[in-house]
Amino acid sequence: MLRKRSVRSVVLSDSPSTGGRSTLLIVAAFAAALLVSIQPAAAQDPLPSWNDTAPKKAIMAFVERVTKAGAPDFVPVPERIATFDNDGTLWAEQPLYFQFLFAIDRVKALAPQHPEWKEKEPFKFLLAGDLKGALAGGEHALLEIVVATHSDLTTEEFERVVKDWLAAAKHPKTGRLYTEMAYQPMLELLAYLRANGFKTFIVSGGGIEFMRAFAEKVYGIPPEQVIGSTGKLKFELRDGQPVLVKLPEIQFIDDKDSKPVAIQTHIGRRPIAAFGNSDGDLQMLQWTAAGNGARFCLYVHHTDAEREWAYDRQSSIGRLDKGLDEAKERGWTVVDMKQDWKVMYPFEKK
Amino acid sequence: MLRKRSVRSVVLSDSPSTGGRSTLLIVAAFAAALLVSIQPAAAQDPLPSWNDTAPKKAIMAFVERVTKAGAPDFVPVPERIATFDNDGTLWAEQPLYFQFLFAIDRVKALAPQHPEWKEKEPFKFLLAGDLKGALAGGEHALLEIVVATHSDLTTEEFERVVKDWLAAAKHPKTGRLYTEMAYQPMLELLAYLRANGFKTFIVSGGGIEFMRAFAEKVYGIPPEQVIGSTGKLKFELRDGQPVLVKLPEIQFIDDKDSKPVAIQTHIGRRPIAAFGNSDGDLQMLQWTAAGNGARFCLYVHHTDAEREWAYDRQSSIGRLDKGLDEAKERGWTVVDMKQDWKVMYPFEKK
Repeated sequence: MLRKRSVRSVVLSDSPSTGGRSTLLIVAAFAAALLVSIQPAAAQDPLPSWNDTAPKKAIMAFVERVTKAGAPDFVPVPERIATFDNDGTLWAEQPLYFQFLFAIDRVKALAPQHPEWKEKEPFKFLLAGDLKGALAGGEHALLEIVVATHSDLTTEEFERVVKDWLAAAKHPKTGRLYTEMAYQPMLELLAYLRANGFKTFIVSGGGIEFMRAFAEKVYGIPPEQVIGSTGKLKFELRDGQPVLVKLPEIQFIDDKDSKPVAIQTHIGRRPIAAFGNSDGDLQMLQWTAAGNGARFCLYVHHTDAEREWAYDRQSSIGRLDKGLDEAKERGWTVVDMKQDWKVMYPFEKK
Repeated sequence: MLRKRSVRSVVLSDSPSTGGRSTLLIVAAFAAALLVSIQPAAAQDPLPSWNDTAPKKAIMAFVERVTKAGAPDFVPVPERIATFDNDGTLWAEQPLYFQFLFAIDRVKALAPQHPEWKEKEPFKFLLAGDLKGALAGGEHALLEIVVATHSDLTTEEFERVVKDWLAAAKHPKTGRLYTEMAYQPMLELLAYLRANGFKTFIVSGGGIEFMRAFAEKVYGIPPEQVIGSTGKLKFELRDGQPVLVKLPEIQFIDDKDSKPVAIQTHIGRRPIAAFGNSDGDLQMLQWTAAGNGARFCLYVHHTDAEREWAYDRQSSIGRLDKGLDEAKERGWTVVDMKQDWKVMYPFEKK
């Protein structure tokens, strides 16, 4: 900020009386533009939607510790890896994971091509609007719905289907597009970390191709930094043109114990900061915390029944029970959404 | 280049007569330093170890086409993805894949802990120095050797073992460290692409953790941009400390049809340029070529029996047969190592 200010004052105070000087002014203005784009605006609050409570202070203190050249906890840029869960951490996840709401809509859209679903569980329940009946089949029913709605398409066709759904479908409570329900404080946090040399990754139980359809636009996270659950893919030539077809088989479920495995396989470097909201993220936080040097682990705790939803230990979606205990024990940062966030969603700011 | 020169001339011609001016000079010098570090040195030859033959011209013409703002084939920076095979493309692969030479050395090192190997194929052949006998068991024998030498360690222990081997083991023909046998022209190509906004990835049949142990240092490719074959990993707590243990099971073989699958899973974006040397890379090149807009596919053809090795259609290592035909048919670039490369390895330059 010091540099930026001095550049500006020079630009304003020097008058362009000579050719040399005006060149100089252009150069200085150019330098100022460069500095503005390169330097994070330190004087501006990088996290304006966070209240000035403990979590915001802890985040900023950590970033300062690891980015200050010569400091004992300095971390070189290539090692500044931060991993984020998606559902319930970067965007909302109630009343059901948004990807599952997509799958339900897709069952309805595909039903004419599957007359057998009228008689078949769990599809017949979904088609009759009986969500409870559909989910009574537990994990097996869930998987069957996801597999049926996420396969037998090429990867490009699937991307189009997801993008079309995201552009039109509305959330039952807010009436907003699902992508409008990313948490504003987390969007600021992602940008703040990146401005400080961090590479931000999603490490989520959600489907990798579902998330990639919006992660770059909504979070600024490119597809190669999105890690998630995957289905099997098959390479084939169709009329001489290569395509990748989504097969109806699960390849990898990116949850719990599998999150550190996915981080190792995909990133190959241990994060120095990790952000989650449920017990499914606990191993990712443990793995992150166990590295040498400064580490930062944060849980988003859903405490705001009014602006969002309040749930933790008893919830079937995003249960936070063991994780909450371990966070307290180990001094990890826990965000109380009601207390710590000024704004929940970007649309509240308008 | 133009901007850089004008900044310098300003710095040299203006005398620091006032406080405002000297601030300005500091700013201008700072701007110059920034520009030098940001702009690729366009006047220097970025590929000095390449002869001025067709491949070099094709590479540079392609890079110009996709990076020139406003041009019809312009590609935005985030989409400038380039994928490289490793063995035989970025470093040598004869007389055997270097990772397999590592595995043989490791069988010898581990033999005292495995007295049963004295009687067991293929290990007994390796321990008796009979490579041919060991390889007679075909793919099954190979896999058995790799699995036995690459598992039952934590990921961190394995990285240490590989790094120690790479720091000491010498290649049987050149007497050099294996990491000294990266191809100098390809190192220049990697740097040239990155200077033009490309993200460079390895997509190799080699083991992902074996390659990551040297890829950042040797190629400037960080671990998250290295994709390879993987073994299964298991997350566990040892005395409360989380570790990832390499299990004796293959998770994914990154070869042939699986290369586009790995690209989709790991990168989630189709490359615009791909580089390989064998039929194992053909599907990666096909997948790359099939995208919209400008595309670049290149095969390294091993034609230099003197400085390196000459092999293609009949070789059991790095066979290039179908790929060579398809490259000719489709007008892909084929590097004739003997004709097109001035220098093979970095150590030749000294």
